[in-house]
Amino acid sequence: MRARELGITIGELPVGTRNAISDVAGVAVGHTTVHWGDAQAGLSVGQGPARTGVTSIWPHRDDIVRKPVSAGFFALSGTGEMTARSEIEELGRINTPIVLTNTMSVGVAYDAVCRYLFTRDPSLSDDEGVVIPVVAECDDSYLNDSAGFHVTREHVVQALDAAADGPVEEGCVGAGTGMHLFGFKGGIGTSSRVLPANAGGWMVGVLVLTNFGRRSRLTVDGVPVGRLLESTETRAPDSTVAGEGDDEGSGIVVVATDAPLDGRQLARVAKRAALGLGRTGSTGANGSGELLVAFSTTYAPGQAAGVTSKPILEGSAIDPIFTAAIDATEEAVLNALFMATTTDGRLGRVERAIPIDRVRELLRQHGRLSSGGAE
Amino acid sequence: MRARELGITIGELPVGTRNAISDVAGVAVGHTTVHWGDAQAGLSVGQGPARTGVTSIWPHRDDIVRKPVSAGFFALSGTGEMTARSEIEELGRINTPIVLTNTMSVGVAYDAVCRYLFTRDPSLSDDEGVVIPVVAECDDSYLNDSAGFHVTREHVVQALDAAADGPVEEGCVGAGTGMHLFGFKGGIGTSSRVLPANAGGWMVGVLVLTNFGRRSRLTVDGVPVGRLLESTETRAPDSTVAGEGDDEGSGIVVVATDAPLDGRQLARVAKRAALGLGRTGSTGANGSGELLVAFSTTYAPGQAAGVTSKPILEGSAIDPIFTAAIDATEEAVLNALFMATTTDGRLGRVERAIPIDRVRELLRQHGRLSSGGAE
Amino acid sequence: MRARELGITIGELPVGTRNAISDVAGVAVGHTTVHWGDAQAGLSVGQGPARTGVTSIWPHRDDIVRKPVSAGFFALSGTGEMTARSEIEELGRINTPIVLTNTMSVGVAYDAVCRYLFTRDPSLSDDEGVVIPVVAECDDSYLNDSAGFHVTREHVVQALDAAADGPVEEGCVGAGTGMHLFGFKGGIGTSSRVLPANAGGWMVGVLVLTNFGRRSRLTVDGVPVGRLLESTETRAPDSTVAGEGDDEGSGIVVVATDAPLDGRQLARVAKRAALGLGRTGSTGANGSGELLVAFSTTYAPGQAAGVTSKPILEGSAIDPIFTAAIDATEEAVLNALFMATTTDGRLGRVERAIPIDRVRELLRQHGRLSSGGAE
Amino acid sequence: MRARELGITIGELPVGTRNAISDVAGVAVGHTTVHWGDAQAGLSVGQGPARTGVTSIWPHRDDIVRKPVSAGFFALSGTGEMTARSEIEELGRINTPIVLTNTMSVGVAYDAVCRYLFTRDPSLSDDEGVVIPVVAECDDSYLNDSAGFHVTREHVVQALDAAADGPVEEGCVGAGTGMHLFGFKGGIGTSSRVLPANAGGWMVGVLVLTNFGRRSRLTVDGVPVGRLLESTETRAPDSTVAGEGDDEGSGIVVVATDAPLDGRQLARVAKRAALGLGRTGSTGANGSGELLVAFSTTYAPGQAAGVTSKPILEGSAIDPIFTAAIDATEEAVLNALFMATTTDGRLGRVERAIPIDRVRELLRQHGRLSSGGAE
Repeated sequence: MRARELGITIGELPVGTRNAISDVAGVAVGHTTVHWGDAQAGLSVGQGPARTGVTSIWPHRDDIVRKPVSAGFFALSGTGEMTARSEIEELGRINTPIVLTNTMSVGVAYDAVCRYLFTRDPSLSDDEGVVIPVVAECDDSYLNDSAGFHVTREHVVQALDAAADGPVEEGCVGAGTGMHLFGFKGGIGTSSRVLPANAGGWMVGVLVLTNFGRRSRLTVDGVPVGRLLESTETRAPDSTVAGEGDDEGSGIVVVATDAPLDGRQLARVAKRAALGLGRTGSTGANGSGELLVAFSTTYAPGQAAGVTSKPILEGSAIDPIFTAAIDATEEAVLNALFMATTTDGRLGRVERAIPIDRVRELLRQHGRLSSGGAE
Repeated sequence: MRARELGITIGELPVGTRNAISDVAGVAVGHTTVHWGDAQAGLSVGQGPARTGVTSIWPHRDDIVRKPVSAGFFALSGTGEMTARSEIEELGRINTPIVLTNTMSVGVAYDAVCRYLFTRDPSLSDDEGVVIPVVAECDDSYLNDSAGFHVTREHVVQALDAAADGPVEEGCVGAGTGMHLFGFKGGIGTSSRVLPANAGGWMVGVLVLTNFGRRSRLTVDGVPVGRLLESTETRAPDSTVAGEGDDEGSGIVVVATDAPLDGRQLARVAKRAALGLGRTGSTGANGSGELLVAFSTTYAPGQAAGVTSKPILEGSAIDPIFTAAIDATEEAVLNALFMATTTDGRLGRVERAIPIDRVRELLRQHGRLSSGGAE
Repeated sequence: MRARELGITIGELPVGTRNAISDVAGVAVGHTTVHWGDAQAGLSVGQGPARTGVTSIWPHRDDIVRKPVSAGFFALSGTGEMTARSEIEELGRINTPIVLTNTMSVGVAYDAVCRYLFTRDPSLSDDEGVVIPVVAECDDSYLNDSAGFHVTREHVVQALDAAADGPVEEGCVGAGTGMHLFGFKGGIGTSSRVLPANAGGWMVGVLVLTNFGRRSRLTVDGVPVGRLLESTETRAPDSTVAGEGDDEGSGIVVVATDAPLDGRQLARVAKRAALGLGRTGSTGANGSGELLVAFSTTYAPGQAAGVTSKPILEGSAIDPIFTAAIDATEEAVLNALFMATTTDGRLGRVERAIPIDRVRELLRQHGRLSSGGAE
Repeated sequence: MRARELGITIGELPVGTRNAISDVAGVAVGHTTVHWGDAQAGLSVGQGPARTGVTSIWPHRDDIVRKPVSAGFFALSGTGEMTARSEIEELGRINTPIVLTNTMSVGVAYDAVCRYLFTRDPSLSDDEGVVIPVVAECDDSYLNDSAGFHVTREHVVQALDAAADGPVEEGCVGAGTGMHLFGFKGGIGTSSRVLPANAGGWMVGVLVLTNFGRRSRLTVDGVPVGRLLESTETRAPDSTVAGEGDDEGSGIVVVATDAPLDGRQLARVAKRAALGLGRTGSTGANGSGELLVAFSTTYAPGQAAGVTSKPILEGSAIDPIFTAAIDATEEAVLNALFMATTTDGRLGRVERAIPIDRVRELLRQHGRLSSGGAE
């Protein structure tokens, strides 16, 4: 159940058709879910269980290498990895799909994207020489046999090929398969916002890979749901059920927009999106790599050397983009939380889905369900 | 009325004795309030009304120039000024008091601090040569005759001399005299947190100068108070009463701690404190300079060249400091909001105090007042 | 004698008409030199001698507040001050003149610029509210009675009013009056480069305020002149003559161009200009604030909110701009060195001009004088 | 022939025993050179020729994952990749070996390091969960069949295992096999500096992977050798011989020291090392990723949470470290240049070694050969 279905409305801006990053025209998302092996059986490295996967986000599918999109980066907490960060900051653009996976699989994903692009279009070898793909990660080793390296090149290719516009699957899917969130099961979430026509009518879409947070900090639309759940729940006697969380983890935020923004502006957008993480309860913990990237599908950085003329959104017109990025990020995290399902994993561990009925009850007690809240 | 008196509790950590930045031993705060001139009369630049002032924060009062404290900086939104930022980032320390004032008075404050320090201790001239003081600002020109330059060197000296430990005055005082906040009157706020003994027992104190935010974003302990107030209030027909706000403004956050953290770590603390601004509704707007500085009173950067041995807090032990900085920042902003009083100013304009009774009612309706809430 | 007159040619690009920052159309420079008081007499703070001043650089003189220019910042070493840095980084632009002065006079200069702009155009008070001027400094307290605060508002106004296009005075003038450079007398220097027509024909101009460097590192067009001078000179028995230098000091670099570059690109240009400092022998020393700002006179950031279309120079077309900024910075430092004259100051100290004849001889011995070298 | 053998002395500080990064106690370097396939035959992707390799640098070989070293990062030009950059900046440390390879092989190297560490020590899986290895690259696709992905996991393992203290091989070896430098053949270079005893006696070592620069900018110990060579050489009629270079490329600089510096200080050291690149002629070109990392073998960041006491080098005592890093970087680049040998590659292309005899002659003409210069 998505946050909206539960009756939650974050902020005042309307959402796009699918309330997903794919509401930004051209953006395509694909998942490969790698989920196999019995949790109880997974006692030695390399034999599983696999609770991991790959998610790809294409800014557009029309020769991305030769037609980069402007982009900006921000690290709320840098204890994680997003490759190509230096190039994003220097050139203000990205020219590959963005691939999300687990920490130990960044290498295979990087390798696979390079091979994929150059196999599909061998002329790149002479025209571009090389690419530096954008690959970002969270650590799913609590549930996943991460040291077994179960993500393969083929999984990455599959996620790249599977990318489509249209609805985006959420929860325990793709790179989100084995992730946790505020001591519950987490994964992939997405959301979007449409600006009013008099603010340009731009679309802002967000996709998050969530793997962060202590339970006591979880805030759902302003309600301290984590603390309230903790105070009432009976702790499971089974120590294999994850509890409080421990500030380890990470989160990746991908912001897309069709507003014509350049790299510098997009770095500012990425920074503001971090406030959306903060509103859900993130503290940018020491061990949590919370990395954010924003791109624009319409401000095309010139590849050719020379002077070009292009439209750009300037001045305070960026403010509603900031607001949209914050709100869509907050909602995307909630979607990841509510769409995830209880998952067992390595060493018989279990990450439970958040108890939605309890959440709904708490929200109602705190006057936070809009009338549209499904029950 | 402070947020706690209203019954609000932000986060789970306990507050210090005064719930103020001065709970960090040695930290002293002083205000000079510059409030004169009739609002209606203020029709020409230079004749007032003055609605401005100066606030000083001393990390300690024992020869700060020769005994610097470690410090770190973060810009949530850089459209503002904090002098000495480059030196903070390069050397990881500050060696002057921190002075807050209005934007156009940064120069006079910088000048006054230099003169003050070198007059008080002429031997600095040979020993140190020069200093680069930390002066930060928000723009109070909505109410204040800012272009009249009504802050003088003497006002700055007075604020420096007035600095004391003990309780910290909040609201429309010192640099906060003419500031706004989410479309209401704002100003100075402060708060603190004490870490549990098993987390080191460190103190974290925050002082904010608030001047930011659109009303519709105002979030009080998770409740969208701004939006709710807007939906029910009758807009004043008098256009001189400030309304929604327009994303202009700024905010300065000063975080102090007695935990032994170095400059790099304090820059991380400053970055997390920005999440506290976000939780109150800040979007880091385009025209809003939201600048944060954090310092430690106990990690003394060596002045002498050479190897010294010193204690430092490492690893994930910084996590509760992050949490404390976020929560104390959020609460300090609320204190600034609730302690401010309706103020008139330039061109007969009025910034109204937030209607506390309405806020209390809204919080109660949303199940957010702890039993201790005074009524 | 300028470096070119000595026969030195830095790099391969041709220089502009004046070999000065004012070769960039519209850029105007003004100096106020504050030089009074007998060196021997200057024994108590406040009584001089004054060996200081103010230099102003206007990106253009047509309502700079309302017509900002794009700009970027870089700190090679941050132990110094350039106000408005945060705003430059956030908004990618500056909207005031740039003022250089001594460290302790940053405040009075900031104050004076605010007053100047708002006095000259009172309508700014309603239209813009406030400004954050760009004021940068080096520390001249070795020669100057810096703690005497001898720069006044009037001096700043005078430098702002004196700004003119045309030739730029160099050496011990304006803010450069009391500065040192590699253990010799330094001050103001400038240089420019013109790109070939097939690279756009853009102009790049640099102005430096130099106050850095140990003598042994001084490199003149690749020749280790500092080391060679040291090995042959008879050290003055008079300890009041400055010798080796001690890594204290600072340097400010202002790069101007008419190439249409945005703020992100100009920050890249500023970073490359630092390599020009390095080529003269700077090590970005711990106590040396070496701060660089670059602006473009032709990429006008929109003040109005909304989408505008504008030309921008993209891709590797920026490479000759990088080269020009590096070379012009190197040459501007040399001009500051060769144009400075022996100056006495506080406590009877003396900073000697570099012995040009010895330099010429060393350059000739090292095969570095082009045939045009005057002798 | 190394620069010193040619008679070149960069700066005034003495070099370590081997004049190599391995002069810093504990630092080990290993190479795998991947050089196969006939240049003429290499006409289709995947069939070679391979002109590439892998270089590993271990800060120490004693359980690096659990015993991190402090580290700092700087991008002179970000158009390249160094993984783990975000973690270096956040935590101020690295906890894996540093691996250098070609751009398209970053993924396989990242993957290989993860596997290597977790295979060698399976207990990491429970203790640490995951690692983020430091992998950096330059683009050798001019000579190397880069799109053929000829670096394998085994090559990486071999370079990791081969790491040894002692002499470091330079030139066309390891990751340097296929690289160019100022239009000549480049590769791996190294150098070191020892501080005087009264400056702490610290060792600073540098290793560079060089792949940057236009020939006309090449500066050898201050002499514009590139320009002078161009003016006299007969251009090869064979267009397959690389000429001027085109600002594409990259460079990686690894600085090691045994001085106890923390992450913030090491980022400053990395920034200064960039000046060494500039002194050889780098312009930090648009297409050139010039990334620098510095680490200290003696400031061990605590892994455990809590307060620890540790020695740290403070204040201006860092200045000779800056100087050493600059000089050793400059000399390491020259060593890469002079130790490289003419190499043919893809499409029959040839990168020629710089003509050492001509360089020696030019240096002598410019008075730059110390008496020790071998002839």
